[in-house]
Amino acid sequence: MTSLQNDLFLRALLKQPVERTPLWMMRQAGRYLPEYRATRAKAGSFMQLCTNPELACEVTLQPLDRYRFDAAILFSDILTVPDAMGLGLSFAEGEGPQFARPVRSAADVARLPIPDPETELRYVMDAVRLIKTNLHGRVPLIGFSGSPWTLATYMVEGGGSKNFQKVKGLMFEQPALMHQLLDKTAQAVAAYLNAQIAAGADAVMVFDTWGGALSHADYLEFSLSYAQRVRQALNTQYDGRTIPTILFTKGGGLWLEAMADTGYDALGLDWQTDIGQARIRVGDKVALQGNMDPLTLYAPPAVIREKVGKVLQGYGQGSGHVFNLGHGILPDIDPAHVAAMVDAVHELSPHYHR
Amino acid sequence: MTSLQNDLFLRALLKQPVERTPLWMMRQAGRYLPEYRATRAKAGSFMQLCTNPELACEVTLQPLDRYRFDAAILFSDILTVPDAMGLGLSFAEGEGPQFARPVRSAADVARLPIPDPETELRYVMDAVRLIKTNLHGRVPLIGFSGSPWTLATYMVEGGGSKNFQKVKGLMFEQPALMHQLLDKTAQAVAAYLNAQIAAGADAVMVFDTWGGALSHADYLEFSLSYAQRVRQALNTQYDGRTIPTILFTKGGGLWLEAMADTGYDALGLDWQTDIGQARIRVGDKVALQGNMDPLTLYAPPAVIREKVGKVLQGYGQGSGHVFNLGHGILPDIDPAHVAAMVDAVHELSPHYHR
Repeated sequence: MTSLQNDLFLRALLKQPVERTPLWMMRQAGRYLPEYRATRAKAGSFMQLCTNPELACEVTLQPLDRYRFDAAILFSDILTVPDAMGLGLSFAEGEGPQFARPVRSAADVARLPIPDPETELRYVMDAVRLIKTNLHGRVPLIGFSGSPWTLATYMVEGGGSKNFQKVKGLMFEQPALMHQLLDKTAQAVAAYLNAQIAAGADAVMVFDTWGGALSHADYLEFSLSYAQRVRQALNTQYDGRTIPTILFTKGGGLWLEAMADTGYDALGLDWQTDIGQARIRVGDKVALQGNMDPLTLYAPPAVIREKVGKVLQGYGQGSGHVFNLGHGILPDIDPAHVAAMVDAVHELSPHYHR
Repeated sequence: MTSLQNDLFLRALLKQPVERTPLWMMRQAGRYLPEYRATRAKAGSFMQLCTNPELACEVTLQPLDRYRFDAAILFSDILTVPDAMGLGLSFAEGEGPQFARPVRSAADVARLPIPDPETELRYVMDAVRLIKTNLHGRVPLIGFSGSPWTLATYMVEGGGSKNFQKVKGLMFEQPALMHQLLDKTAQAVAAYLNAQIAAGADAVMVFDTWGGALSHADYLEFSLSYAQRVRQALNTQYDGRTIPTILFTKGGGLWLEAMADTGYDALGLDWQTDIGQARIRVGDKVALQGNMDPLTLYAPPAVIREKVGKVLQGYGQGSGHVFNLGHGILPDIDPAHVAAMVDAVHELSPHYHR
């Protein structure tokens, strides 16, 4: 069924039996690694790194050479899609992302194109193909996108935001226009992920980084329904392959039941959510990915090992768990501490699959 | 039983019948009011405003002259307690709070005193007495404190923090020392709240602003257990008065069942938590306070009225609800929009108490 040498990750997402719990780590290709910082310096800017397939491939593979991770994740940024929609993305050094042309009016929404991923986002698809070639089937490759809501927050705010005043203003005052924006963004996200699948991605993940800023009702209406629409549009049976799908809403622990009904194969959990209780709440509907507190990685290796054990024990016996952090690794973590986490998962998890 | 002209707030916290849903607003005495900004300018610094009982009284009463709120809340800062413990609090203009002497070692913890509220925090107790006198029984006065965990985050970090690296480092690496720090802080908080009760506070609220940064297990061990210890030490029957107690953990929606078992009369809800589901989860154990998205107040009055209606409808029939925002009001809200919220609660809520 697969030409992969290690398909533990895909099997766990589909709740098929595994010998041990697979793991990868959000932002595993990132600044905590000296080799990443070297490539980043070589690239120039962050965007130059994202848009250069050779360098994006290089940093994607780096963590796999250090650690026994069970998946690679495409190195890219969630804001490539709005950039391709014409918003003009830039990253000022030491600051967050900025859009030159934020979306504020009906005219702004009307003129947004749905990008053709193989033209406007060709550099991402080239990176996916190059990574797949260079992985030689060692582990699966995860493609990803921001969720429509999360992308819309940046598109309306024009960058990062603390309180989401502009995008919530649009949502409260002109909900119909907000829905038009989300509808277009969902189409763009679905096309982008399908192109990643066609280019070789073995699984796809939707990052809803800012869904947790919404009330329950607004989350269902403005975030989850569009994540579901994306899911429905995905080609999850492609060229003889089954492509598992993962939905992660940071701060979404309250809403797991609704998330589990959207057709995604797995839910990402932040570290605030108890994984054992989450498993009871979602039942057999989805697998779970997560969810150690990323701050644990500052602690000494013995503490890391203990906390890994707690997460594995929390999920308990059987397949359907992919070990991960509850959010991305921080830039100043000691790489040796990541090794302690990886070793602990490899050593402690077979117990739960006997 | 009470000499208050309006005790709706206290009755709702105790789940006694009310004619309409009482309301107040987190940060109701604050920068969105021009009269607050005038007093603040007169005081000089923020700390000078906090430590001047006459001016603290003045700003506490200001929102009551504008709006039909059903409670006043002491104007103060949660960091007065660690300041009185000798940490040296300052607020640089335009920046967050800073402690000159953060807590980092066993020796630092050992030398922390438990302040005597009537001496080291005399200015707060004088403010409570002055406010009570000047309220003339119009509405109850809420006293408050930060939770032990939340205070400890500032004490260890030395100020605000994004990721809580230092305090979580202490927690993961030296949990016994972290417990000693929390134990002392809980004693200081309990003494502080009991002094506010003795000075005239009619209800007290514990703000656990950063409990939501913890994993479920760490929340129970390092935050909730100390909030519970504070509750057990409170003099809730004082001088013939029953003092209702409220616990608010921002980001704590996942943990309401555990919070409802700690003896507090009411739980504050952030806006992410569905209030109807919360009511089902906590049953008859506690009243609920909240929880409109504070960003709603940017919207036009008609939208505000609709969203107020949704929160009231979400809680449903019967007592046990205090209307509030899910977090503090933001500084640039139009005061007329607050009036729209207050009017809506007064007009729409009697329906739920027939």
